[in-house]
Amino acid sequence: MDAEAAAPLLAGTSHAGTSWDLRGTFAASLAGLTTLLLVLLALFGQYAADLTDANVDRYYAWLSDVYVMVFLGFGFLMTFLRRYSYSAVSLNFVCSCLVILEALLAIGWVQQGWGTVSVDLPLLIDAAFCAGAAMISFGAVLGKASPAQLLWLLALEVPLYALNAQVVTGRWGALDVGGSITIHAFGAVYGLAASVWLSPKGAGSGHPKNGASYASDMTAMLGTLFLFIYWPSFNGALATAPGTDAQPRAFCVMNTVLALLGACLAGFAASAATGQLDMVHVQNATLAGGVAIGSAANLVMPPACALAVGIAAGALSTCGYLWLSPALERTCGVTDTCGVANLHGMPGVLGGLASALFAHLFYPANAALVAHGAKGQPGVQLAGLGCTLAAAAVGGACAGWAVSRASPAGQSLAAEDMFEDAHFWHEVEKEE
Amino acid sequence: MDAEAAAPLLAGTSHAGTSWDLRGTFAASLAGLTTLLLVLLALFGQYAADLTDANVDRYYAWLSDVYVMVFLGFGFLMTFLRRYSYSAVSLNFVCSCLVILEALLAIGWVQQGWGTVSVDLPLLIDAAFCAGAAMISFGAVLGKASPAQLLWLLALEVPLYALNAQVVTGRWGALDVGGSITIHAFGAVYGLAASVWLSPKGAGSGHPKNGASYASDMTAMLGTLFLFIYWPSFNGALATAPGTDAQPRAFCVMNTVLALLGACLAGFAASAATGQLDMVHVQNATLAGGVAIGSAANLVMPPACALAVGIAAGALSTCGYLWLSPALERTCGVTDTCGVANLHGMPGVLGGLASALFAHLFYPANAALVAHGAKGQPGVQLAGLGCTLAAAAVGGACAGWAVSRASPAGQSLAAEDMFEDAHFWHEVEKEE
Amino acid sequence: MDAEAAAPLLAGTSHAGTSWDLRGTFAASLAGLTTLLLVLLALFGQYAADLTDANVDRYYAWLSDVYVMVFLGFGFLMTFLRRYSYSAVSLNFVCSCLVILEALLAIGWVQQGWGTVSVDLPLLIDAAFCAGAAMISFGAVLGKASPAQLLWLLALEVPLYALNAQVVTGRWGALDVGGSITIHAFGAVYGLAASVWLSPKGAGSGHPKNGASYASDMTAMLGTLFLFIYWPSFNGALATAPGTDAQPRAFCVMNTVLALLGACLAGFAASAATGQLDMVHVQNATLAGGVAIGSAANLVMPPACALAVGIAAGALSTCGYLWLSPALERTCGVTDTCGVANLHGMPGVLGGLASALFAHLFYPANAALVAHGAKGQPGVQLAGLGCTLAAAAVGGACAGWAVSRASPAGQSLAAEDMFEDAHFWHEVEKEE
Repeated sequence: MDAEAAAPLLAGTSHAGTSWDLRGTFAASLAGLTTLLLVLLALFGQYAADLTDANVDRYYAWLSDVYVMVFLGFGFLMTFLRRYSYSAVSLNFVCSCLVILEALLAIGWVQQGWGTVSVDLPLLIDAAFCAGAAMISFGAVLGKASPAQLLWLLALEVPLYALNAQVVTGRWGALDVGGSITIHAFGAVYGLAASVWLSPKGAGSGHPKNGASYASDMTAMLGTLFLFIYWPSFNGALATAPGTDAQPRAFCVMNTVLALLGACLAGFAASAATGQLDMVHVQNATLAGGVAIGSAANLVMPPACALAVGIAAGALSTCGYLWLSPALERTCGVTDTCGVANLHGMPGVLGGLASALFAHLFYPANAALVAHGAKGQPGVQLAGLGCTLAAAAVGGACAGWAVSRASPAGQSLAAEDMFEDAHFWHEVEKEE
Repeated sequence: MDAEAAAPLLAGTSHAGTSWDLRGTFAASLAGLTTLLLVLLALFGQYAADLTDANVDRYYAWLSDVYVMVFLGFGFLMTFLRRYSYSAVSLNFVCSCLVILEALLAIGWVQQGWGTVSVDLPLLIDAAFCAGAAMISFGAVLGKASPAQLLWLLALEVPLYALNAQVVTGRWGALDVGGSITIHAFGAVYGLAASVWLSPKGAGSGHPKNGASYASDMTAMLGTLFLFIYWPSFNGALATAPGTDAQPRAFCVMNTVLALLGACLAGFAASAATGQLDMVHVQNATLAGGVAIGSAANLVMPPACALAVGIAAGALSTCGYLWLSPALERTCGVTDTCGVANLHGMPGVLGGLASALFAHLFYPANAALVAHGAKGQPGVQLAGLGCTLAAAAVGGACAGWAVSRASPAGQSLAAEDMFEDAHFWHEVEKEE
Repeated sequence: MDAEAAAPLLAGTSHAGTSWDLRGTFAASLAGLTTLLLVLLALFGQYAADLTDANVDRYYAWLSDVYVMVFLGFGFLMTFLRRYSYSAVSLNFVCSCLVILEALLAIGWVQQGWGTVSVDLPLLIDAAFCAGAAMISFGAVLGKASPAQLLWLLALEVPLYALNAQVVTGRWGALDVGGSITIHAFGAVYGLAASVWLSPKGAGSGHPKNGASYASDMTAMLGTLFLFIYWPSFNGALATAPGTDAQPRAFCVMNTVLALLGACLAGFAASAATGQLDMVHVQNATLAGGVAIGSAANLVMPPACALAVGIAAGALSTCGYLWLSPALERTCGVTDTCGVANLHGMPGVLGGLASALFAHLFYPANAALVAHGAKGQPGVQLAGLGCTLAAAAVGGACAGWAVSRASPAGQSLAAEDMFEDAHFWHEVEKEE
């Protein structure tokens, strides 16, 4: 089918915007943002003076692993929708690129001060973390936001992410090496708050296209396994403790592996105990251990402790899919396509709480990392969690409002057009 | 389809157990084993004192590669069954996690003595090797064992694996850096012996669901390529020769790459020479070189020697699929869903024999690794191979008997219910 | 369906050769070439004396990444044809293995002189680069060359590749660390020139099987993302500047990441601006930045410069798919199944031109790498590009002629049998 032949297929769509409005706005937004970022990078970006091959030896493999998680992991995890797989993997791709480029500047500025941004591998990893948070937010609005809405929603998230992360971990000294607080809880709450504005009646779990096929569940499983395998790299990529005896990367890796093992076992057990095994649980709850150990991953703790955190997170996440998501939709009308509240939101909060507890319990062993001491650190952890949740909720709600209500008319999808590739893609026929 | 609607679909299934029996036993078994392992890890596990970032720099990338092989490689390779792909990748996932956790303790105890187990990255890699052996066993009973039967079958395999590997390589000093003997031959024979008890009439190659679709052959191919790419890491991950001039990892990598190249070329040539090209051969025989070079991978040898081992293994494995598997099924009634006899069993034995030969032939150059000398080592290799085959055969037969005959009634699948996801999974409709 | 049952299915095929001719020639060619290479490796190959574990630490991870690109990246990218996915991924697999083995010897000889070839990890990486070039050529003739034709076409490419690369970069000292010139432009032009002989009437874009399905576009996307993620490893794997202050790998990584970000953003924007989003653009144009920055990737330059190269390449590549490919087919009758002219050809040339410009512009900072100085190097770059294009065009045309016209009768596919797995594969039913 060529482009002309596809046109009548789209003519009958019920949303106010035509296909041109939808894709024209997307193309113009993307071209404009890209040009702006190119100009800003030309004006303010330069490679760091310490950009050496030693830098590559220390950071490059970890950067690759984080990229696998962002592009393949999140990208394929979101292909579970049977009629929206093209969009899921492709929008994940282009939006991650945009966010990484924007975050190089935004994070550079908040960390290094206004002016020239010194670009190196750790900054690229930080930018990829920001893309992780943005892709979590994407999960909440998957299939409901138009491509242009999504682009702006995530572009607006970047400066807020950078600012919040810098305040919570940079200024206040909260522990959050793997981002339970500043990446997972932040990204989930931002996306859920935005989703309030992008959840028209009929866009929930009952929507006929809001579901998986056998094939799409298999591609999603690929995303899950990439995330599972490389999660230790995510939690350990930037772990450092210069001038101390601490071995933070070693503990990040071991604690994360154990937490993930626990979450997988508990996720499967909880899924089988409460009904037929469900691919939604297998794809998501099994990863909740990586989220929940994130804030405390670099701490010395008994291995059973990391395993227990993972078990708790896996069980909690499965229960979230069974009871929290339906309740959120029924009572608040908030739909959460990927269940990010269950995979990132609740386990992220659990991770923040666990870090407060562990910083206290295992203090002397972790003195090099716990800046505020056994008594002060738990409060800092809770303050960081509170600040993050508030910033994400307010920021996500404002951004969601902006892209849904304040944008040009006809740019929102009607409920019946959601979860469907055919509006945006060449040669995709609509499901009859 | 929601859970209620799915119930009648399952009502008419002919196996004695109801869906609840099947999944209830699985859920209870998994929850019980997980709890037990958590308690044991809390009592006996602690992180190693040498768990440093240098440890991470040496081992972590290799651990990741082995994880890719276990979770993505074996997991997707087994998705070739068109009606059993959910179960293949998911049971591979959860059982690998269970085995890794159990193996941390089991291998820790046999290596370090009873009492506290010191957990570090090399132990995690060893545990992942054990999961490799277990997933090979899974391949023999794929689609025939119920999830709970599989869980117990593999849980019982772990201590036997740990003991055998410790005796053969630790005590006796057999060469087996890549596990031709203690991983591949062991896992294959254990699974085949268990499969004797799980091969009812009608569960063989003629079963209408025991086959691939175009899509499932493609996902399986993904598994093959991951295994092909990262196999050098498997064979080299734990190669060491402290206090010597030997460079074992370098030779592991080079020999394994060459053996894999040979197996791929020979596997394709043999497949095309004997009939239409067959995805079964492409998915499996191409990897036989990695298996066969495993025991001798760290030895200095001419590169053509490694290539020749691979060529022999690839051709042998293809012939196995063409003639051994049908003969095994016809004469012994043993069905081997994935053909692990051809990919792991015969090439593993070939690898054991090759290591005996090479330890003799290339002795002086490998004196640092060959503990028993040019004359003594071949006997040790053969003894290790014999011990492994015997242990796996007896152990697998006992475990297979236990999970199939001694377990609660109604837990086995009838032949007509095999190779089918619909019994265990939410929202999977049965093939009409 | 067993082998006998499949026979009648093939009886009605219209190509002159029978199935036996096609697969017999393939099997004999492959077995013969493999045997020849085994003998040559036995006579001339030996492991390098410096094959140490330090060698592994420096090169092995980069080798793995390049292997992922070759086997999974190119392999899955070419599965986009809905009826030719088995052949795409499998022929990519076996041909890459053959090329790597052959290139070990061919590149070894041109680099080290005739006689003994010293095999080590950098040589394996060089051989994998050659496989990259060969898989690019494969893309131009995908679905049109029979397996045996393809085998010979690529086997003939290896010595020419080795010679050209050695002349252009080794002798003349052209900059080409990531192979814009000697890998991408070379491989594309070789394939296109050969395609002239393999493009019968009816084998173009209008062929009913020359297209994707929803599922095959998803597997292709997997290839794209692997290529995107690991491309910095491709461009940096062999970067060295011994005895200087240059940090070539660090710049290779950073410049390549930025160029890829630019190409993805520009590719999506150009696709959306000119019509409905198209998976062909998303799968290919997004990668053009990695191609175009290749020759200059190791140079110190402002980050915005690398980003701009990527943006230009992404936009250029999308335009190529929209206008160049149809024009090539209409005016010259050359069909280019994967559009390698757009992903590798034009961006490769762009990369050669960019390297000439950057070697001049950023000279003093790159004095350690730019052997011929700010004035001389641009000419060398252009000469290298010219030599490469000429060699590839002449070599590809001769090889294409040889495999299509000079080979035994009945070995070519008729147009109506192209883009179809059923001729070669067991158990694939032809599309009705």
